[in-house]
Amino acid sequence: MLAPQRRRAHPCDMIGVDWGTTSLRAYRLGPGGTVTDRLDRPGGILTVPAGGFPAALRDAVGPWLAAGETRVLLCGMVGSRQGWVEAPYLRCPAGPAEIAGATVPVPFDGAEVRLVPGLTTEDRDGIPDVMRGEETKLVALATTLDDALACLPGTHSKWARLEADRVVGFTTHMTGEAFAALSQHTILARTSTEGPHLAEPFARGVARARQSGGLLHHLFGARTLHLMGRLEQAETRSFLSGLLIGHEVAAALAETPVTQVELVGAVGLAALYAEALRLSGVAVRSHDPDLVAAGLHHIGRSLGWT
Amino acid sequence: MLAPQRRRAHPCDMIGVDWGTTSLRAYRLGPGGTVTDRLDRPGGILTVPAGGFPAALRDAVGPWLAAGETRVLLCGMVGSRQGWVEAPYLRCPAGPAEIAGATVPVPFDGAEVRLVPGLTTEDRDGIPDVMRGEETKLVALATTLDDALACLPGTHSKWARLEADRVVGFTTHMTGEAFAALSQHTILARTSTEGPHLAEPFARGVARARQSGGLLHHLFGARTLHLMGRLEQAETRSFLSGLLIGHEVAAALAETPVTQVELVGAVGLAALYAEALRLSGVAVRSHDPDLVAAGLHHIGRSLGWT
Repeated sequence: MLAPQRRRAHPCDMIGVDWGTTSLRAYRLGPGGTVTDRLDRPGGILTVPAGGFPAALRDAVGPWLAAGETRVLLCGMVGSRQGWVEAPYLRCPAGPAEIAGATVPVPFDGAEVRLVPGLTTEDRDGIPDVMRGEETKLVALATTLDDALACLPGTHSKWARLEADRVVGFTTHMTGEAFAALSQHTILARTSTEGPHLAEPFARGVARARQSGGLLHHLFGARTLHLMGRLEQAETRSFLSGLLIGHEVAAALAETPVTQVELVGAVGLAALYAEALRLSGVAVRSHDPDLVAAGLHHIGRSLGWT
Repeated sequence: MLAPQRRRAHPCDMIGVDWGTTSLRAYRLGPGGTVTDRLDRPGGILTVPAGGFPAALRDAVGPWLAAGETRVLLCGMVGSRQGWVEAPYLRCPAGPAEIAGATVPVPFDGAEVRLVPGLTTEDRDGIPDVMRGEETKLVALATTLDDALACLPGTHSKWARLEADRVVGFTTHMTGEAFAALSQHTILARTSTEGPHLAEPFARGVARARQSGGLLHHLFGARTLHLMGRLEQAETRSFLSGLLIGHEVAAALAETPVTQVELVGAVGLAALYAEALRLSGVAVRSHDPDLVAAGLHHIGRSLGWT
């Protein structure tokens, strides 16, 4: 009669949760990081009322807790000032051991719950940079690679240098937000139309980014190319997307010259980055964006949970 | 009895009008370009109904016409597709003679009225650029200078190379619009407040622009500097202004290395450019933004009007 009870008490290693601004993804993780169950739903931290995080967590993973899970590791914006409790940024270089040592426990009835810290670094000019959530994916990526440069596209894209299981430094580019602001709130909005992504004007934008004159001049060029009949309204957004991603890729590769980039994600925005990187003469290896579950399990192992 | 009539018929050389999107500035111009009377008012081309340009011009300069003026030269957006008649862009290099030869006559009862064309050029990569209105100021500037690099700050800043009375080429930077879009429609809006221009964070932004990493990374740095307590909310807009103007200045000087820049304007935005240029180690000479009257008179002379 002991076996079922033991199975109930420790059916898996841990629960891992990636709790961001707009969504919550939870994983029930077994030996080796095997995902035995998963949950993906809205209910990001912005929807949680003050003091409501314990109830919101129980609402999400209550059935797994009832089944005997006793350890929960949370990463993402849940550890920010706007989240449950602030888990202060940890300085790079950082790997699973350093991150595990900097996790922050939060009171929770019936389980040990800890928050993964974000990371901070400074660029060569001493300007600070931060990430929160991406560090967990990078921990998983770093264990499978030697020295590498990883790119995580997003509203605020991250480029991280990985060495020997650790994130040694990284750089953020505000490309996604800049694209939204510039395409919607400048004169370029007047001569562009929404529509499908177009590969040819995107490639022209990427090529333009490698020419001289600077981004602010290149932006006006999107206007004049249209004026001169060399860029259609339907092509302008793709050209602008290529121009901005091209500038980001060029700047990132100038900082860290490599011949191959490890790209997290294969579809959507990541596919555009893959194309821009290839057009820039760099090999691309795409990785599962679901790396976060493996990363949570790696950090859990450093906590002695697995 | 002839003298008064002769005075009525040709009391001055011509009327010059700078008719832009949002305003109309008219000058009654005598020998040597002397401004004998002037008018500055709203009533830009966007307020003129279809077919209403003759009436709008008469409403503005009717008294001068009644006093005997017979020649009117118009520059600015009045010569664009959205204006009276499109005066097609003239290719650089262009000086007063070429511009006079490309002016476009429009029918008007009782006076000869002509539109000044805008200019077009291509950068070293074959991407077109355009200006409309600035060419008239540059014509005036070029007559007083030898080879020079002129900067005309604005929503779309122009950098023009002047040689022997002519505009040989130019570059536009979408800096003003980019500043508005990025400061109001990204995460930077959340941590910045309106307020007076601050010289110290502006200078930090200009210095930052000369460092590595690229503009898209530098933009995110404004966020992290605030997060780390190194940039106050009241300082963020000035820092961002310095960052963007600094990127423009750095790109323009990389294209055309000079030790002195001729800056049109002395107050407001031009004062910021003067400071950014000085911080970049370049001497600045400021010129009267009212150059347009002199430019119209120079073109008028090439038309044989003076």
